[in-house]
Amino acid sequence: MSEVRRDILTDTWVIVQTETTEIPLNHRTPRKPPSVCPFCVGNESQTPSEIFAIRAENTLPNQPGWQVRVVPNKKPVLRIEGELSRVGVGIHDKVSGIGANEVIIETPEHIKSLHTLSAKQISLVLKAYRARIIDLYKDKRFRYVMVFKDYGALAGASTIEHSHSQLIALPATPQQIKSELSGARAYFEYKERCIFCDIIANELEDRSRVILENNLFVVLAPYASRFPFELLVFPKRHAFSFEMVTAEEITNLGEVLKQIMQALYDTLSDPPYNYVLHTAPNLLPQRDYWTTIRDDFHWHLEIIPRIKRTDGFEWGSGFFINPVAPETVASKLKEKL
Amino acid sequence: MSEVRRDILTDTWVIVQTETTEIPLNHRTPRKPPSVCPFCVGNESQTPSEIFAIRAENTLPNQPGWQVRVVPNKKPVLRIEGELSRVGVGIHDKVSGIGANEVIIETPEHIKSLHTLSAKQISLVLKAYRARIIDLYKDKRFRYVMVFKDYGALAGASTIEHSHSQLIALPATPQQIKSELSGARAYFEYKERCIFCDIIANELEDRSRVILENNLFVVLAPYASRFPFELLVFPKRHAFSFEMVTAEEITNLGEVLKQIMQALYDTLSDPPYNYVLHTAPNLLPQRDYWTTIRDDFHWHLEIIPRIKRTDGFEWGSGFFINPVAPETVASKLKEKL
Repeated sequence: MSEVRRDILTDTWVIVQTETTEIPLNHRTPRKPPSVCPFCVGNESQTPSEIFAIRAENTLPNQPGWQVRVVPNKKPVLRIEGELSRVGVGIHDKVSGIGANEVIIETPEHIKSLHTLSAKQISLVLKAYRARIIDLYKDKRFRYVMVFKDYGALAGASTIEHSHSQLIALPATPQQIKSELSGARAYFEYKERCIFCDIIANELEDRSRVILENNLFVVLAPYASRFPFELLVFPKRHAFSFEMVTAEEITNLGEVLKQIMQALYDTLSDPPYNYVLHTAPNLLPQRDYWTTIRDDFHWHLEIIPRIKRTDGFEWGSGFFINPVAPETVASKLKEKL
Repeated sequence: MSEVRRDILTDTWVIVQTETTEIPLNHRTPRKPPSVCPFCVGNESQTPSEIFAIRAENTLPNQPGWQVRVVPNKKPVLRIEGELSRVGVGIHDKVSGIGANEVIIETPEHIKSLHTLSAKQISLVLKAYRARIIDLYKDKRFRYVMVFKDYGALAGASTIEHSHSQLIALPATPQQIKSELSGARAYFEYKERCIFCDIIANELEDRSRVILENNLFVVLAPYASRFPFELLVFPKRHAFSFEMVTAEEITNLGEVLKQIMQALYDTLSDPPYNYVLHTAPNLLPQRDYWTTIRDDFHWHLEIIPRIKRTDGFEWGSGFFINPVAPETVASKLKEKL
C-alpha cells in the first residue's frame, strides 16, 4: 500500500510506499532485466489483464494480434479502489493513495528504442494515450492524468527494456502543472492571449531555437532550458487538452517524434531520457479551479535527455545550471534532420 | 560567460553557459579524476588564490599550513564582477550572470568522505561556511548564499574526489527557498509560531521519525520525504540564519554530522549524496520582501542520498514517489548509531 503525504511547508506531495522493507541500492548493484520479457507478444499472460488494446479484428483480449497494449502496472504506485479522503497526522496531512498506474506497451516485438518503431506505430501509441486519457477523465476522482516515458536507468526506467510508456491518474493536480497553469492564466488575464501561442510565434520569428517546423507541429529548444537538449513539441493549433488531438495531428506527430528521437539518439549517443505529456486537468469535477481552463493552456510534449546529473545546488535552490545553450542544441540537432 | 534566463511560464531561473561548444556525454564516457589533485596540501598553486583559510599562525596564504581552505571555483557558473541588470529578449527575460562560486576544501589530506574526517575537522568546515556567508552578505548584490556538497557522480559531483563543498552567491532568492519562506510565513501569520519549531516538537513527541537527538540538535527523516533516506538536521534553538550559529553548536554539529554520515555510509553502502544548507536570505538589501524574515524561518541542513533516480513522472509533476517510508529509514539508521 501507499500513502500520499503532503509537505506542509512547501505543499509538495509524495507517494510513500509504506510497505517496503528492502532498501534499493541500485547505485551499487545494477538491476538485471527479467529473463522472459513480459511485454513481448505471446507472453500476455505475464501481465495483468489488458485495459485497452489496438488489435486486429477477431482477436481476443490478452492474446496475440495486438499492436499496442495497455495493462495495469504490476506494482502500481497508487490503487484504483477506494474513496478519496484527507486526514491529519499530528501536524501533517495525508490523503489515501488512490489513482491508476498503467503501462502502455508500444510494440509487440522486443524493440528497445522508440525511434526504431515506424512512424505509423508511434502514431498508434499516441492514439492509445488519447483513448486512455478520455476514459480515465470519466472518473471524477481523477484530477490529472500524467503520461510519461522513462528510457534508460539514468532516467529512472525499470529493468524491462521492451519499449513502453506509463500513465498515472492522480487525485490532485500536480504542483508542476499548477505552476504552468497559473503562469499561463496570469499571462492570459493580462494579454488575453495564450502564452504558448505567443512563445511559438516569437520563436518562429527568431528561429535560433527552432529545430523542426511543419504545417502542424513545431519543435523548440526552450529559451530557459533547465537541461541540455531539453525539447518542447507544440501543436500549432491551439488546443488545451491532448483529448482534442485530431487523427491528422496524430499521424504527423508520429513522424515528428520518430525524426526527433532519432536525431537525439545520434547526437547524444543513445541518451537516457524522459518525456512527459503536458495536458489540461480533468474538466469534469467543476469545483477544481484549474478545470475552467480553456483558452489559456496549450498541450505539449516535453522531452528531457538525462545526460547531466542534477546536483545539490539545483535540488536546494530550484535554480538550474545548463552547460549547453539551447541555440547550440538547435543547430546541432538541425544538422541531423 | 553565462546568462541567467527566466522561464516566463513557471518563473524558473536557469544559468545557461552560452560558451560551451562541446557536449558532455557523461552517460557514455565516465570522466576521470585529474592525475594531480589540486586540493591537496602542497598543490596550492593549482587553484585560484585563496579567499579564506583556517590556517596555523605565521603561515602564508596559498602555502601549506591550512586546515580548511576556500578558493574561487576555477570554472565559476557566475562571475563576481559587474552590475545587476535585467533585460527583455523578445518575449523572454534575462539578467546578467553575476554571483560568486567558491570551493570549500575540507581537509589538506587526500580524503574522499566527510565522515572519515574528525568531528573537530568537520566543525572547522562549518566555521568556514559561516565566515563566508557573513562576508558575502556584506555585498548588497547578493540576495542568497547557497552552501552545498555533491558527493559521487550520481549526485552531480565533479571528478575531483578530494572532500570539498561549494557555495554559490545569487543575485535573486531562489524559488525553492522562496517557497519555504512563504510556507513558513503563512504558518507564522496564522499561528504566530515558527513552523520548524512546531515540526521539531511534533516529531520529538511522536519519535517514529527521529534518528538522533542531543541537547542542541535533532536529526529527522521528514514526514513527506521526497527521496529514500532524505534527512533534516535542525538546531533546537530557534535561529533564522546560519550566521547566528554559536561556537558550541558548531562543535556539536561536527559530531552529529560525523555520526549521521557514517550511518548513511554503512546502511546504504557508500551512497552518492547532496547536502544543502537552508538559511535566511541576505538581510541587507531591505527592498527584498524576504529579508524581513526573523521569527518565521529556522536554518537547517538537508541531506539527500541519491540512490533512486528521479523519473519522468517526478520531473513532470513535482509529485515524488518514495519507495522507503521515513519511519523505516529512522529505525534502520538508529540501529547504526
